[in-house]
Amino acid sequence: MSKIAVIGYGVVGSGTVELFEKNRESICKKVGKDCSIKYILDLRDFPDSPYADKMIKDFNIILNDDEVEVVAEVVGGATFAYDYTKQLLSKGKSVVTSNKELVATHGAELLKIARENNCNYLFEASVGGGIPIIRPLNKCLAGNEIEQISGILNGTTNFILTKMIREQMDFASALKMAQELGYAEKDPTADVEGHDACRKICILGSLAFGKQIYPDMVHCSGISNITLDDVEYAENAGYAIKLIGSVKPVDKEHVTAIVCPRLVSKSNLLASVDDVYNAISVTGDGVGDVLFYGQGAGKLPTASAVVGDIIDCLKHHNRVLAMSWDDCEDKSYVVNYKKTEVSMYVRIKADDAEELKSAISGMFGKLMYIERNGRPDNEIAFITPNMIEEDIDANLTILSHSCEIASKIRLL
Amino acid sequence: MSKIAVIGYGVVGSGTVELFEKNRESICKKVGKDCSIKYILDLRDFPDSPYADKMIKDFNIILNDDEVEVVAEVVGGATFAYDYTKQLLSKGKSVVTSNKELVATHGAELLKIARENNCNYLFEASVGGGIPIIRPLNKCLAGNEIEQISGILNGTTNFILTKMIREQMDFASALKMAQELGYAEKDPTADVEGHDACRKICILGSLAFGKQIYPDMVHCSGISNITLDDVEYAENAGYAIKLIGSVKPVDKEHVTAIVCPRLVSKSNLLASVDDVYNAISVTGDGVGDVLFYGQGAGKLPTASAVVGDIIDCLKHHNRVLAMSWDDCEDKSYVVNYKKTEVSMYVRIKADDAEELKSAISGMFGKLMYIERNGRPDNEIAFITPNMIEEDIDANLTILSHSCEIASKIRLL
Repeated sequence: MSKIAVIGYGVVGSGTVELFEKNRESICKKVGKDCSIKYILDLRDFPDSPYADKMIKDFNIILNDDEVEVVAEVVGGATFAYDYTKQLLSKGKSVVTSNKELVATHGAELLKIARENNCNYLFEASVGGGIPIIRPLNKCLAGNEIEQISGILNGTTNFILTKMIREQMDFASALKMAQELGYAEKDPTADVEGHDACRKICILGSLAFGKQIYPDMVHCSGISNITLDDVEYAENAGYAIKLIGSVKPVDKEHVTAIVCPRLVSKSNLLASVDDVYNAISVTGDGVGDVLFYGQGAGKLPTASAVVGDIIDCLKHHNRVLAMSWDDCEDKSYVVNYKKTEVSMYVRIKADDAEELKSAISGMFGKLMYIERNGRPDNEIAFITPNMIEEDIDANLTILSHSCEIASKIRLL
Repeated sequence: MSKIAVIGYGVVGSGTVELFEKNRESICKKVGKDCSIKYILDLRDFPDSPYADKMIKDFNIILNDDEVEVVAEVVGGATFAYDYTKQLLSKGKSVVTSNKELVATHGAELLKIARENNCNYLFEASVGGGIPIIRPLNKCLAGNEIEQISGILNGTTNFILTKMIREQMDFASALKMAQELGYAEKDPTADVEGHDACRKICILGSLAFGKQIYPDMVHCSGISNITLDDVEYAENAGYAIKLIGSVKPVDKEHVTAIVCPRLVSKSNLLASVDDVYNAISVTGDGVGDVLFYGQGAGKLPTASAVVGDIIDCLKHHNRVLAMSWDDCEDKSYVVNYKKTEVSMYVRIKADDAEELKSAISGMFGKLMYIERNGRPDNEIAFITPNMIEEDIDANLTILSHSCEIASKIRLL
């Protein structure tokens, strides 16, 4: 009889218990032995829960119960969860988690502790909710050198952008709707400013390239400055604006990683990923492009990934399922994104806008101007050719003496 | 030092060797030990190959070499490959394969032999080429009861349908182009009539529901009867015609499985999957819908999956990576698709077509008529409501006394 404990009975925790109990019969068949949830740790009281008899408040009960083989840490954050996870792994108990913050900030260390103690630390749920991505990247695509990972990694911002694109709702109204529907928090900063997506691209990059990428190494900008005018220009040029997390190698020793809104060509499937859905595109030197799509958050989708990891741990108790990456001391491992090439969408405002065109063309060479219905005479939008970003900035600095740079958004 | 053998030096075999050698350094790092390809078995001579020194013609050299831990069987077919695979697994050597025919017809038996001999039989490459789907289905989604799998599983037919949809090329011309580009074989039957897709949906269904589904249990129809008129009607109603393999449970003891062209709503991402790309949509009771997309065939994409499996076998030598399904003696496990519900697109021809409308409405109740530019007076197209397929057929049989049933295509 294999016993499981769940730490945290919030949205993901209660979903994990619900899905496990619902499908327990077939889960036991897959594991090859009887297994059940023995404890649910939460500081709150749930007297009316059907699982009230499993509820505990003392972490040490789980830590010291030799029957417990696997613990689902779904409490979130990097304080208690960090401490608990270290203790559990040190005792040889496998831990599975949806905690992207913890994996993104302490992944290398926790994977090492797991390996040393002959158990597993799995986190399929930490990126893309229920979408299988960690295991496919680590195993199915292991024969490839990964050339790029780009993804829509945050459902809240994708919902907001979808409303802006499809229904011409402005950012503030779309955010309000997302909050009313429960897709966005009261304080939406972590989603809207890209911090959530940043943690996820850090995890994917760490796994793909073997070295921990910490969130503070990654430039991160959000969607709060995107206007409906930008959405319309993008649409007219054949693009959709999406918040994209990207990571790719520059050379054998360096990567670039960035989270920012981007113009995504409509020929790219990522442009068709709408509402709260997430998708991750991976390019490998053998496989070419593959894409993984699904619900990137939510109670049962995230629980699906947690329970999948629980099953894998139970099936391979006391056997390490190889997954690891090295720690990274050198902050220069992630190169400055300003030193890399990109195409940029730029919108400027100036009284004599039309007259600036020859100066702009002189600066950027072959560029593309974009139109929109009712474009005012004092506005111009264009897409630069591919060039080093700091060179684009230098040009825009000069240009800013004669106009206002109203928007600039990178292309994917 | 772990040694690998490759059986078959055709497209996938040579791709496997190429990708492995290209990325060998990082592969060895992932495996945690030095590993190399020792033998390549092929009856043909390749004197100019850079791997000529590894080429052999005698299978027994591989079988009897204790250094060989993993064999990639990429020779195809269910004759030699079947015999070789059984012998290798019986000796405790893991086998990885892209051979969908063999997995679809002998999977249960071969998985059992692998388990009994403490080795692995992996076949990520057998479905969707390089797209990760076997491992995600078996592991990441293990916490779900799978409710449906539907996929575009054959790149050749998807290329042909894309040409018909996007460029109004007729079937024969599109097939000819596919042959000229090397996407279709000289004898295109296995692709065009759906047999290739059938083997793949059998593998996915066997894995998802735990019981072998054999290809002869699955109704299979191809795309050779699809006309440009059908494509246009579908387009006007908001659908794209795609060759879809589907499997889903009917109850605890039965499934349905079918391969046929279908009208796919444009709100479904599968409708946007074009050219030689494949995509597989999986619905689980926890995760909801997830979709996996990429190149479903080709030298390096397929090799990507083969090499990924090789790495997994090397990492877990002498340790069984649990995956299995039961054999299935009972042909009624797959229920007759005629007994299940479906909506049907129907195109009829009759001199007095318009006058048949009241009879048709009487038969089918609430149905939807579709228009197309230049629709001749003697033609009507409509979509039936969702009903048992044999009831639709019974109606159409009656109708066929007054008209010609020119096309009928299921909706997804």
